[in-house]
Amino acid sequence: MDLKEKAILMHKKWNGKLDTVSKFPIKTSEDLAVAYTPGVAEPCKLIAEDPSLAYTYTIKSNTVAVVSDGSAVLGLGNIGPYAAMPVMEGKCVLFKEFAGINAVPICLDTQDTEEIIRTVKSIAPGFGGINLEDISAPRCFEIESRLKEMLDIPVFHDDQHGTAIVVLAGIINSLKITGKKKEDCRVVINGAGSAGIAIARLLLSYGFLHLTLCDRQGILGKDTKDLNWMQLEMTKVTNLSNACGTLADAMKGADIFIGVSAPGIVTPQMASSMQKDAVLFAMANPVPEIMPDAAKAAGVRIVGTGRSDFPNQVNNVAAFPGIFKGALEGHAKQITEEMKLAAAKAIAGLVPEEQLSDEHIMPQAFDPRMAKAVSEAVKEHIAR
Amino acid sequence: MDLKEKAILMHKKWNGKLDTVSKFPIKTSEDLAVAYTPGVAEPCKLIAEDPSLAYTYTIKSNTVAVVSDGSAVLGLGNIGPYAAMPVMEGKCVLFKEFAGINAVPICLDTQDTEEIIRTVKSIAPGFGGINLEDISAPRCFEIESRLKEMLDIPVFHDDQHGTAIVVLAGIINSLKITGKKKEDCRVVINGAGSAGIAIARLLLSYGFLHLTLCDRQGILGKDTKDLNWMQLEMTKVTNLSNACGTLADAMKGADIFIGVSAPGIVTPQMASSMQKDAVLFAMANPVPEIMPDAAKAAGVRIVGTGRSDFPNQVNNVAAFPGIFKGALEGHAKQITEEMKLAAAKAIAGLVPEEQLSDEHIMPQAFDPRMAKAVSEAVKEHIAR
Repeated sequence: MDLKEKAILMHKKWNGKLDTVSKFPIKTSEDLAVAYTPGVAEPCKLIAEDPSLAYTYTIKSNTVAVVSDGSAVLGLGNIGPYAAMPVMEGKCVLFKEFAGINAVPICLDTQDTEEIIRTVKSIAPGFGGINLEDISAPRCFEIESRLKEMLDIPVFHDDQHGTAIVVLAGIINSLKITGKKKEDCRVVINGAGSAGIAIARLLLSYGFLHLTLCDRQGILGKDTKDLNWMQLEMTKVTNLSNACGTLADAMKGADIFIGVSAPGIVTPQMASSMQKDAVLFAMANPVPEIMPDAAKAAGVRIVGTGRSDFPNQVNNVAAFPGIFKGALEGHAKQITEEMKLAAAKAIAGLVPEEQLSDEHIMPQAFDPRMAKAVSEAVKEHIAR
Repeated sequence: MDLKEKAILMHKKWNGKLDTVSKFPIKTSEDLAVAYTPGVAEPCKLIAEDPSLAYTYTIKSNTVAVVSDGSAVLGLGNIGPYAAMPVMEGKCVLFKEFAGINAVPICLDTQDTEEIIRTVKSIAPGFGGINLEDISAPRCFEIESRLKEMLDIPVFHDDQHGTAIVVLAGIINSLKITGKKKEDCRVVINGAGSAGIAIARLLLSYGFLHLTLCDRQGILGKDTKDLNWMQLEMTKVTNLSNACGTLADAMKGADIFIGVSAPGIVTPQMASSMQKDAVLFAMANPVPEIMPDAAKAAGVRIVGTGRSDFPNQVNNVAAFPGIFKGALEGHAKQITEEMKLAAAKAIAGLVPEEQLSDEHIMPQAFDPRMAKAVSEAVKEHIAR
């Protein structure tokens, strides 16, 4: 049985992937009287006097809502809230398995920005954090930033920041190998959607200076037509020479290429036009922008993908469990740029320098140290 | 340690009561590839083609949202969404323990009727049913009826219908003991809020003819001032002689009294003014309208309360798990009047006639046959 058949079979057999269970058994009248009426009135009264005690007496402190409108699910596009459920359930399962965090899938029957913001705000009291997932750009930027302003719990769009964090972790380790300086590197990012823009912003925060964003139109510059407001913002801090041209033009002489775009979009010629000791992350899923062997044959030194069946898997699962674990344990009100940078460095730091190689820049997805290392780093950088 | 201390300790020690867990272990890259990317794309694609397959491949078929705005929690009143969480978590735990149903607490940061309706509609896709909880009257009536119209999954306000169902179950068995006919009985219900009105409506559906609703103003009639729209509706089908007077006036000669009101509101004199073979359910929690021993001393034959430490506990936990189990298993789009009546008869039927006595009209809360008996009865009455 191949993977596709197995995935269908498992989802059907188990009728989805997530269960809710009681933390303690309810087998007697006394159990019932403690967990429900009349005993339950006591923690209720304490929280009514001081709502912050919800963190003590309820699951809020360790529970995240995984919220999607189904508008940009995996590489499948706008498949809607029902079809998004298996992904959100999967994400919830990963929260538990990788970081011990409870998570609840919330798939929304609306793709209206205002309605999404209102809904998430309405359901927030019971949750300690909001993981936004698979919401299309540019709506995702406004939804996230407005919710961050409104709510006193962390709001984190994983497609943006989770991806950006693991990419930065991989880049940090790649530079250790190639010996290049971040200030000198020319970086090309293809795909100016949620992930590409978040990657660009985090690389700028980290200290990269020379970034070029590309999308269907080619290189994005101040004069590019049909840019959304966030892409337009990005033209102020990337492509400082205001170059024009195609993706192929952008890649000539680039030190680092990051693809969060479409299968097979990078040709061997484009890969071979890059600088010596080039780094190329082809993260389109499941088929990358260029296959690793082709990129290697074209002279690229370090190649990463989103897949577990090639070396250097650059996968969000390294980041979001530890990020939320740290934010929840540290009672962070937001997940800040500093926390994201700390997470990226912590992930990179899990591969000791003596073990670093062209084929080993990332820790394994199942590295048991990961969530703890990331959460500890994140906690140290919570703003007070 | 008394119950109150124990309840506080348990909630604190466990940090709330509910956990989310994976239905199957995620320990290897292959597990990850099946439960998450890339395997998860397969059920997503199937559901995108046919959204009804969400019932096959996701947790929708067996997951209920327990939704509250914290406006009428237990006897504590409007304590808000944070303080409502322990009750909603407790309810979720009961869904699992009594009926094997997954449930998620959703406490809302709004008490605006329109906003609640919008929010519940928005989050509905991932759920197989909506259990509304502890929402104050008369908003609860509009919220429930509007959501029932909008959604294609069962919406059930347990404070109304769960209470009404268990009360009817107790009344059915009481009449078996006293030998009175429902058509002849004079019934007084004190407390014209969500529970009282729902009880009145279900008793009318069952075939009772002579109902009197009372509230702070005394007997509700066509000329009573300050009635909300739902109470006004009820004056068209209750108190057909349009009597006026106090609760004490109403109770004179009544066969059945049902209190869903306030502690100690019924005096021994009022109880003793009832008809021979009177039935009295004093369901205010935790302190009933009249204590069972006082009612008995005043000549009432059958006394029920909401408490587990007296005979004849009339408790919602007998109803809602089985109701939802039946509705979910039978893919019901609504929980209809017929399904509620069937549930009440099923609960009553769990006490065999030869075991019926003044002190034993209800099955035990932990009767292991309960959820199955109720769900089977409910399934037989799903409208097609």
